Amino acid sequence: MTARTITAAVLVIGDEILSGRTQDTNTNYIAKFLGTLGIDLREARVVPDVEAEIVAALNALRTRYTYVFTTGGIGPTHDDITSDSIAKAFGVGIDYHPEALALLGARYKNPADFNESRKRMARVPDGADLIRNSVSIAPGFRIGNVFVMAGVPAIMRAMLENLMPHLERGAVVHAITISTRLPEGRIAAALGRIQESFPDVAIGSYPFYREEGFGVQLVARGRDSGSVEGAAKAIETMLEGEGDRPERLKN
Amino acid sequence: MTARTITAAVLVIGDEILSGRTQDTNTNYIAKFLGTLGIDLREARVVPDVEAEIVAALNALRTRYTYVFTTGGIGPTHDDITSDSIAKAFGVGIDYHPEALALLGARYKNPADFNESRKRMARVPDGADLIRNSVSIAPGFRIGNVFVMAGVPAIMRAMLENLMPHLERGAVVHAITISTRLPEGRIAAALGRIQESFPDVAIGSYPFYREEGFGVQLVARGRDSGSVEGAAKAIETMLEGEGDRPERLKN
Repeated sequence: MTARTITAAVLVIGDEILSGRTQDTNTNYIAKFLGTLGIDLREARVVPDVEAEIVAALNALRTRYTYVFTTGGIGPTHDDITSDSIAKAFGVGIDYHPEALALLGARYKNPADFNESRKRMARVPDGADLIRNSVSIAPGFRIGNVFVMAGVPAIMRAMLENLMPHLERGAVVHAITISTRLPEGRIAAALGRIQESFPDVAIGSYPFYREEGFGVQLVARGRDSGSVEGAAKAIETMLEGEGDRPERLKN
Repeated sequence: MTARTITAAVLVIGDEILSGRTQDTNTNYIAKFLGTLGIDLREARVVPDVEAEIVAALNALRTRYTYVFTTGGIGPTHDDITSDSIAKAFGVGIDYHPEALALLGARYKNPADFNESRKRMARVPDGADLIRNSVSIAPGFRIGNVFVMAGVPAIMRAMLENLMPHLERGAVVHAITISTRLPEGRIAAALGRIQESFPDVAIGSYPFYREEGFGVQLVARGRDSGSVEGAAKAIETMLEGEGDRPERLKN
């Protein structure tokens, strides 16, 4: 049970997220994906298409977590500055990657169509390895502990699949969710005592306000399934003692 | 046109976002809300329910941006540690706020129902002002340039409405979105030249891959509506020169 904890951060790069134009869904997808591998997502940041911001955030995150996953900014247009910023953060050069040039070039029957802008997508920092994707061909790349992916969700997901074999895995977190109609404020003290009894389980309390009514979802999460089950049972017993009929939800 | 730029950051606090259990939608809502006030959202971070992480992130953000908006962690349960963490970040004490106690206490006919857990929601850092909400009564608070809000979206939105009068406003950013069926790689060079001609406009290029087909949305954003219109016209003329019939989208 003392296996090394594998941690990760997500760095979302893009003005369109900060302006509110686009709702980021990549972080949530990556969070769930890492969960299946037993990797803990510990932090996420969103920064604009500004080199100094990308460099500073990347260097803060890559020195702190096992892995960093970036999304966005690796296309062919002037606002795609991620690859250059990553090279700068690592203090390395950047050049056309022969394999990336071959992959991209093969898409065009007329060589004139493989123009400078499209060739830009083959530029990767020195020492980086490509991450392939079957959706748009243009690859992402890995350098050190940083995985650089596209922002378009379908492409990002294809890249995530392809980089999976390169990730170290941890013990998977087990989660049990219990739904109750009792208000948080009535069960909070008892819930706090249960949390104290199960120090290796993280118990979260998430109220919801929906059309069909109010309620709370109580989530027990931990790497020891026996402890998680024990905490869940203690929560259910407590809720029943308060006159509720708690419901376990499928996770 | 040399009005002060008002900047902001969002700090999302909550294990449930990082585990992938919950898709954060508050950041996108706040981004759009700030946009209507001419405030630039410059960064967003998600941190877990861990005091040291909240303190470090808050102190990094509040010293850098005009405003910081936090969401999550101000309820009655043991995992709600935002208020204490904010007090620690500011190096001030924390105590029951008389007005918050009165607001919350008025909800309970039986004084015994206003238990310690519920009273916890009236604890705010010394010197903070309350942010009211009509949805759940439990208030958020403002301390210095930091606005502390609930994580439940309906409550967060009610708080955002109520704190609006306290925000300084900036010049609103104008945006024009143009949709094209031409691939990014074909127009990238021309688009880059247009960007160079309109330095006070930020031109973004966002490819989409949908069932109905591929395409790109080109967005021109800036505070000078004449420049934005000029950039948009230049983009449309360029696209028409490439044989496309570009379409302006309503923003």
